[in-house]
Amino acid sequence: MKEYDIIAFGTGSSMNIISSLIERDTKLKVAVIENEKAGGICLTRGCIPSKMLAYPAELIQEIRRAKDFFINAKIVSLDGNSLLRRVQEDVDKESKMIEYSLRHHPRIDYYDKTSSFVGDYTIDVGGKEIYGEKILLCTGSKPLIPPIEGLKEVGYITNKEFFYSLKKLPKSIVIIGGGYVSLELGHFMAMFGVDVKVVEMLPDIIMTEEPEARALVRRELSKDIKFYLGYKAKEVRRSMGKKIVVAENKDDETVEVKGDEIMVATGRAPWKETNVNKTGVKTDSRGWIITDEFMHTTKEGIWSCGDAIGKYMFKHVANYESEIVYYNAFLNRRIPVDYHAVPHAIFTHPQVAGVGMKEEEARKKHDILIGEYKYENTAMGEAMRLKDYFVKVILDRDTYQILGATVVGPEASVLIQEIINLMYTKEQAGAMYRALHIHPAMNETVQRAFYNLREG
Amino acid sequence: MKEYDIIAFGTGSSMNIISSLIERDTKLKVAVIENEKAGGICLTRGCIPSKMLAYPAELIQEIRRAKDFFINAKIVSLDGNSLLRRVQEDVDKESKMIEYSLRHHPRIDYYDKTSSFVGDYTIDVGGKEIYGEKILLCTGSKPLIPPIEGLKEVGYITNKEFFYSLKKLPKSIVIIGGGYVSLELGHFMAMFGVDVKVVEMLPDIIMTEEPEARALVRRELSKDIKFYLGYKAKEVRRSMGKKIVVAENKDDETVEVKGDEIMVATGRAPWKETNVNKTGVKTDSRGWIITDEFMHTTKEGIWSCGDAIGKYMFKHVANYESEIVYYNAFLNRRIPVDYHAVPHAIFTHPQVAGVGMKEEEARKKHDILIGEYKYENTAMGEAMRLKDYFVKVILDRDTYQILGATVVGPEASVLIQEIINLMYTKEQAGAMYRALHIHPAMNETVQRAFYNLREG
Repeated sequence: MKEYDIIAFGTGSSMNIISSLIERDTKLKVAVIENEKAGGICLTRGCIPSKMLAYPAELIQEIRRAKDFFINAKIVSLDGNSLLRRVQEDVDKESKMIEYSLRHHPRIDYYDKTSSFVGDYTIDVGGKEIYGEKILLCTGSKPLIPPIEGLKEVGYITNKEFFYSLKKLPKSIVIIGGGYVSLELGHFMAMFGVDVKVVEMLPDIIMTEEPEARALVRRELSKDIKFYLGYKAKEVRRSMGKKIVVAENKDDETVEVKGDEIMVATGRAPWKETNVNKTGVKTDSRGWIITDEFMHTTKEGIWSCGDAIGKYMFKHVANYESEIVYYNAFLNRRIPVDYHAVPHAIFTHPQVAGVGMKEEEARKKHDILIGEYKYENTAMGEAMRLKDYFVKVILDRDTYQILGATVVGPEASVLIQEIINLMYTKEQAGAMYRALHIHPAMNETVQRAFYNLREG
Repeated sequence: MKEYDIIAFGTGSSMNIISSLIERDTKLKVAVIENEKAGGICLTRGCIPSKMLAYPAELIQEIRRAKDFFINAKIVSLDGNSLLRRVQEDVDKESKMIEYSLRHHPRIDYYDKTSSFVGDYTIDVGGKEIYGEKILLCTGSKPLIPPIEGLKEVGYITNKEFFYSLKKLPKSIVIIGGGYVSLELGHFMAMFGVDVKVVEMLPDIIMTEEPEARALVRRELSKDIKFYLGYKAKEVRRSMGKKIVVAENKDDETVEVKGDEIMVATGRAPWKETNVNKTGVKTDSRGWIITDEFMHTTKEGIWSCGDAIGKYMFKHVANYESEIVYYNAFLNRRIPVDYHAVPHAIFTHPQVAGVGMKEEEARKKHDILIGEYKYENTAMGEAMRLKDYFVKVILDRDTYQILGATVVGPEASVLIQEIINLMYTKEQAGAMYRALHIHPAMNETVQRAFYNLREG
């Protein structure tokens, strides 16, 4: 049985740790196990390729708005298939480079096999057993596929097939699920001419966002996407060359939503196939790996981070957690993970960005102040002729500690960063008031939200 | 002689002070003197209307780039005249509202007259003398018109005529001066079909920016604007219905640059007509009002801020200085003005934003570290297919205090804010490293500049 100093599952965020370790210790013997394209979800079928589509989609929105500024622009034609192909090829190239460097590294054995624990620190990879002194469980996640009658038989795609193998955009598509994957890819497809319908069993899209954020996204996307909200997909069948999703609401009303293709985007599920319980790593009821605040699992020497622990499934969080693992597992530190200011953004139209707590959660834990301001009430928002997009901040009433924020509108993902940074300072909101803000730049909306407080 | 508690010159930033004062003290008697449209330079002929043109101009740039993303978009027609007219009308409406509220305020006498000091605290406004207990000299600035032979006779416009009265964009224009006013308005005109030529006597455009920033702006704008750099305008004449700027470089080479109109944008000059020396307020050799660090002039009870003091001629600085005046002049505080993190942005293509010191200045005062990173080396920059745009930060080598930064590229004016805020915190660069940055959002470029340090 081959023995390693470290076995790393996955080639996503675990690679941050491995590359740092290999640089430090030239004798280290490492096994890397990957049963997907190298590079992790972010690169191969997540954040990166989706943003390569989000920007062109937004560009189409901008072109449509041009007439408001006396620019008569016409979209003569669109070639979403070529764009998608370029994205797939670009990502594939980067993935292959990562795979190549892993396969040819003198200290790394690369296993492109399905793997499963068979005992303490012992893993079967494609029929061969290997042993690891320390183990990194960065196994990521996979699409959650709800048990819908006929779904498997009729066939569907997920984000994975979309980025791995879809050759041609369908003429029409039914997306089951209304979360951020659905909205980002749905918006891209709608902008490039696909007839997009979204079936969501919850009463609204992106339910994890503030209600007023959802309302604006719904208002804008409804111009190009048909939403069936509160409808649970019950059955999938095929008829007259079309795929049909039969969905039902609480009042037993049924809709039949037709399309050339079905995409399932109903959330993420853990990789149970790794059988981590065989080595004593505990998982929660859904199968996500349990870690303590130091990112250590319930088994000595085994650490986990990223999607696999089922908390904040964002690449920037996985990167951060991988640093925590690196310090605690390999540099003998005891640094607890700090989730007080986790940001995220959804790159749809409009963009949505959030950090920290939302209003409801904050109110349960603090006496709060809420500050809101609309883009259109600043000079830049007026220059852009925006309507209703906003910045919302939540502060502790006594300390002016920044608890959370939501931004909806152009460049939300950029605007929010000045708030995030201050959440890591002693000054908190104080520095927001003192820091000069360029006039007229979009950030004035952020500062004015902090000036426009009310009891929450 | 009518006596007032306060006389305010100008209806720009002085109004911040007056409106706060009037709210606090309902017996206050105020005179406001304005010999231009009400609202100050920013609203009537500066930041605000120029941004209303900058956004559509950038939109045209975006539409041109669309083909890189398999979007075949065609600009069928452009109507810059209607856009300019709308901007002029919008601004005029806001200005008239401000004027109306000033004229009808029970505590304010509004003088729309040219004014001049005639003695201590005594001003002649249109032939009538008034006296003020305290005086706010927020007289702004006006276009600097260089003494070029024939210029006056042949005729020209400045930003003022552009926003006040220009009915129709010329077919071609020669802009004398290559600063930010020239580039912002020149870029707008070029995008809307005007043949734009810029004559600048200095060796480069926007000489106040870092050399690498200038180079990128020059590279991009040169695609649509013809620059004559190092050429000093010597003479202006008219021939065959065209206006001709004759300019000469150091090697005595002469060019004749022709256009239907000439715009002068060679900087700003003080309002000397106010004759502040008559009341004992000293000015510098150029005529800018001298204040101490508390914004107090050399004469008891007379305060100044904004363009009039000739320092940082940005509206956000004037707003900030007006706060300092308010606290020190009326609330008996002694708050010194703090210019350590003054930001600015130029809304041309690409955008440029800066804060604090530039490299050369920083090196004279500190041992420095320089951090640079290109947009294209982050996922979002790659998704947008950008080239060479960058973030540059300058830190003190020992303390990691942030000394300055420059950003060139899309949303530079937004990206820089997260740096500015940290310049007002104890943590300085430390918080930049700790604060999570959304992946993949454009701000990763900023954070990575801080990770990518070299001795400077």
